[in-house]
Amino acid sequence: MNKKMIFRTVGEITLLEAFLMLIPMVVSIIYGESCFLSFLITIGIAVAIGLPLTLCFRKVNSAIYAKEGFITVSFAWILLSLIGALPFLLSGEIPNYLDAVFETVSGFTTTGATILSGEAIEGMSHGLLFWRSFTHWIGGMGVLVLIMAIIPSNSGHAIHIMRAEMPGPSVGKIVPKIRETAKILYLIYIGMTILEVVMLLFGGMNLFESLVHTFGTAGTGGFGVRADSIASYTPYLQWVIGVFMVLFGINFNIFFMIIIGKIGTAFKSHELLWYIGIILTSTAVICINIWGTYETFGETLRTSFFQVGSIITTTGYTTANYDTWPVLSRIILLGLMFVGACAGSTGGGLKVSRLILLYKIVKNDITRALHPRSVNTVKFEGRTVEKETVNYVTAYFILYIFLFAVMVLLLAIFDGWADIASLFSAVAACFNNIGPGLGAFGPASNYAALTWMSKIVLVFAMLLGRLEIYPFIVMLRPSTWSSVRES
Amino acid sequence: MNKKMIFRTVGEITLLEAFLMLIPMVVSIIYGESCFLSFLITIGIAVAIGLPLTLCFRKVNSAIYAKEGFITVSFAWILLSLIGALPFLLSGEIPNYLDAVFETVSGFTTTGATILSGEAIEGMSHGLLFWRSFTHWIGGMGVLVLIMAIIPSNSGHAIHIMRAEMPGPSVGKIVPKIRETAKILYLIYIGMTILEVVMLLFGGMNLFESLVHTFGTAGTGGFGVRADSIASYTPYLQWVIGVFMVLFGINFNIFFMIIIGKIGTAFKSHELLWYIGIILTSTAVICINIWGTYETFGETLRTSFFQVGSIITTTGYTTANYDTWPVLSRIILLGLMFVGACAGSTGGGLKVSRLILLYKIVKNDITRALHPRSVNTVKFEGRTVEKETVNYVTAYFILYIFLFAVMVLLLAIFDGWADIASLFSAVAACFNNIGPGLGAFGPASNYAALTWMSKIVLVFAMLLGRLEIYPFIVMLRPSTWSSVRES
Repeated sequence: MNKKMIFRTVGEITLLEAFLMLIPMVVSIIYGESCFLSFLITIGIAVAIGLPLTLCFRKVNSAIYAKEGFITVSFAWILLSLIGALPFLLSGEIPNYLDAVFETVSGFTTTGATILSGEAIEGMSHGLLFWRSFTHWIGGMGVLVLIMAIIPSNSGHAIHIMRAEMPGPSVGKIVPKIRETAKILYLIYIGMTILEVVMLLFGGMNLFESLVHTFGTAGTGGFGVRADSIASYTPYLQWVIGVFMVLFGINFNIFFMIIIGKIGTAFKSHELLWYIGIILTSTAVICINIWGTYETFGETLRTSFFQVGSIITTTGYTTANYDTWPVLSRIILLGLMFVGACAGSTGGGLKVSRLILLYKIVKNDITRALHPRSVNTVKFEGRTVEKETVNYVTAYFILYIFLFAVMVLLLAIFDGWADIASLFSAVAACFNNIGPGLGAFGPASNYAALTWMSKIVLVFAMLLGRLEIYPFIVMLRPSTWSSVRES
Repeated sequence: MNKKMIFRTVGEITLLEAFLMLIPMVVSIIYGESCFLSFLITIGIAVAIGLPLTLCFRKVNSAIYAKEGFITVSFAWILLSLIGALPFLLSGEIPNYLDAVFETVSGFTTTGATILSGEAIEGMSHGLLFWRSFTHWIGGMGVLVLIMAIIPSNSGHAIHIMRAEMPGPSVGKIVPKIRETAKILYLIYIGMTILEVVMLLFGGMNLFESLVHTFGTAGTGGFGVRADSIASYTPYLQWVIGVFMVLFGINFNIFFMIIIGKIGTAFKSHELLWYIGIILTSTAVICINIWGTYETFGETLRTSFFQVGSIITTTGYTTANYDTWPVLSRIILLGLMFVGACAGSTGGGLKVSRLILLYKIVKNDITRALHPRSVNTVKFEGRTVEKETVNYVTAYFILYIFLFAVMVLLLAIFDGWADIASLFSAVAACFNNIGPGLGAFGPASNYAALTWMSKIVLVFAMLLGRLEIYPFIVMLRPSTWSSVRES
């Protein structure tokens, strides 16, 4: 195993974080807030860790494989979160380090689950609120993908890192060169971010809040600045955020195809059609189910669409306390938590394409069981799906369900005071990177009441969800480390 | 497709049901109850359906394949339930036919979910109470397996029927001849049934109740005669039923090995060791969790063990209202609902061996992803698991989770008054063939309050659970019937 390359990449990530933290520091200086000092100290610490790692391993063999890719990603994300939590702690605005780490992991993984009460959020300094939401934007497209886009690398193996960090069952390069792919992804991401900020400014939101909410939307995160999330903004602003959430849940390859003019190909994507179909159907059913709760048809439609878009893209913004809706609507939302957005987007969950693939694999298996001599392959988006991908997708689903059950069990051990549906929804909301769950952890509440053990479980749930399980499994496998000693 | 053979087998099953119904009829005559007439009429109807089918297709080509096996089993079980429900309806003791079908399907599938209140059960005639529990015994080992054991057949393809009806991921023949295997299974089944009856009689239970509770235990069903299930019986009787539940949840191949003296081999079974391990661990954890609820250590241990054994074997008898236990205990029980008993037993659920296989498949997939050139196979119980079985087990699990989600959604549409945890547990309890769930469908309640649409959903849940999904999927696939027209 190429340990040196892992160290170097983790070092680079730490330096990148130090650099990115300059932005919230500037924000805190603009607002004349004392928290700028905590950013400064944290930047110092990050440089002190990152610089030696980067310099020591500057000239190493950059060849890495799947295993190194997974381990780099796991370590990088853990270190990012541990450092990223420091400004909250040092400023005293989140006095407990575990809570600060919970909030930061929730940010980077684009979950948006918070341990802060509504009043605490509204009383927070601008610098830290900015940083809290900025982590969504950084984590959405991936830090390692960003490194690839900006640091020239002669490695032909960077695809392994990209695979480990990008969501979805199969990562395609948009263009043959991995570095170019990473650049194009970030350019689309930045372009759409600017567009949303402009549209929010146009609706009368101030620049600070426009930026914060755009970060939350772009990363499909969900951190905001108000106790009632998006509920007290104008209908126009709610529609802008609602539509952009849905857009950021689409595979970025689709946007690339549209930009290069292949619009026909883009709209032939089965995943896109299913994604839109699920959103429209769910919105319609919830509209009917909650009929009469809101005054006008427009409000009913807006609220339903916003909540469906927010949950399926795993953003987690709310304009209504959906926990008071009828059970059918709540179960649809609970179901959408698992469906998730499209692969190759910034959203979490199982991903629409993974579910389509699972359906096709099962159908194919049944046909084969009945006609043993027939030769059947699974096809998706016009191409034959490789045996490896089939195995990967089924294994992922099984692991996902197992881990889910284990985490619910652990929460029940540590926090027996909560009811089953609430605990279940807490794991669903964190593992799928959504944010608020139902009941005791619904939109009107937060995660502060949990014991520290449960918070650690949920921190891992968020990381496992964002990085799609494998990196951590590889990191925790004993055989990964026994082979270190061998080589 | 060999349609004629399907008709003949279904005809034979109907005649067998008519024959088996003579027993509860005799019971009702002994107790001088008027319900003997409803049995008589039902037997007449069953013969009128079964005899022509059997005679018309007496001399047909008996060659059948997997597809015919699945379809025979689906049709046979549906017809069995529709006829088996008639005595309840004709006697007026369950005046609604759908409720009667629900109760009968719940019986044959060894679920034990009831639409009857405690008072209604205690007021029922002996003949119908006997029939209600006897369906558990018949359904436990399987009617088609019974047909195979008693009717001489020259078909070399009976294994397809046995595969379709026997629970678990892989059905092994105990001895080379399928008919002998079926006979041995039933002999062990009858032997253990007699043993339990004797031990219950010894504890002072009367013959009628001993038979009824043994049927419920042997089939891992759960129907009883009292409103409080097993709670008001003596500790001795509770221990006997508790231990026998656990025994009937063991793969019957293990008993065969013990009988022929291969005790060492029997106890090397990984599934058995895991099964026992899970029971002991869960019992211990629940003991600690409910500490103080019951007066003595003995009572705490007995209650914990009984409930764990009852749920993991998917029997559903209760000695305590576990719905009032702390959330950890309830979540453990909810988890055990999914684990289920061993393959090749009368129990339901996912089955311990299927879970072990899933774990090994995932582990193997991860290893292969990291070391693409390594050749890895999944091994279980000392043998290499075939590719086909691997595909079957993973596809089954995925189907299982999908169907589960769909059924919860349907229940939420039809019965929005109930809370999420209750609806979830209702599907879990029926799909896994357990009986009582939690909350609104917990041990202190029943399924009567549901709408007729939800009852139909749960009838299918019970059948899908008992027959392990595939038979119904095959029956409902359009291509199954388009090929009928072709051939």
